[in-house]
Amino acid sequence: MEYTTQTKVDGEFDAVVEKTVDALEDAGFGILSDIDVRATFEKKLNEEFRQYRILGACNPGLARQGLNADLELGALLPCNVVVYESDDGDIVVSAVNPERLLSIADDPDLDAVAEDAADRFDRVLGDL
Amino acid sequence: MEYTTQTKVDGEFDAVVEKTVDALEDAGFGILSDIDVRATFEKKLNEEFRQYRILGACNPGLARQGLNADLELGALLPCNVVVYESDDGDIVVSAVNPERLLSIADDPDLDAVAEDAADRFDRVLGDL
Repeated sequence: MEYTTQTKVDGEFDAVVEKTVDALEDAGFGILSDIDVRATFEKKLNEEFRQYRILGACNPGLARQGLNADLELGALLPCNVVVYESDDGDIVVSAVNPERLLSIADDPDLDAVAEDAADRFDRVLGDL
Repeated sequence: MEYTTQTKVDGEFDAVVEKTVDALEDAGFGILSDIDVRATFEKKLNEEFRQYRILGACNPGLARQGLNADLELGALLPCNVVVYESDDGDIVVSAVNPERLLSIADDPDLDAVAEDAADRFDRVLGDL
């Protein structure tokens, strides 16, 4: 099982990020973190990097359900959706596969949470 | 292989968070995200939850090396260290196991990155 699911989206980078945030919110996710990898590498390494954003998406109800099943689960949360420029100049939106990610916790009580998150991410990628 | 490594730390919750951030910075990590789960659940679900913080730790050099090997890797970054109150009232610091986490990317080029990050996290937990 691949650990991410991707789609190419037409448009300028910043507009695609905005569209992705909107689609995540429509699917019940809040954005709890937003990491600008390019800016971080420029500041910390003084090096250029492609446009690359890491959005940390969290559905509070699912997160609570997951943490009640496994208190350590925060180590795997939030579930990330990344937006980046490909080598060909395409803008790619790629979501972590929640079922693959949560499989490392090896807890059947998390299966329903992972499946619900995966369904929502499928909807988000379909909407873009 | 467990997906996290934990240690109990004496002190007040906020002081332990601060000490954890300092230890991470000493080990070469920047904190790129800091999620207050309790505040999020209070705001979004109107429910009480234990003290629980998710710190997203990133060593820029390792992140660049990892992303150069696998452009999708941002879906798994940064590596989280969580600080929470246990049922017994202890303050627990728990770091994701980078080798277990990155194993889902199934790319031998990431082994050295994961091992380096794991060594750093071991140092952080040892310092607390």
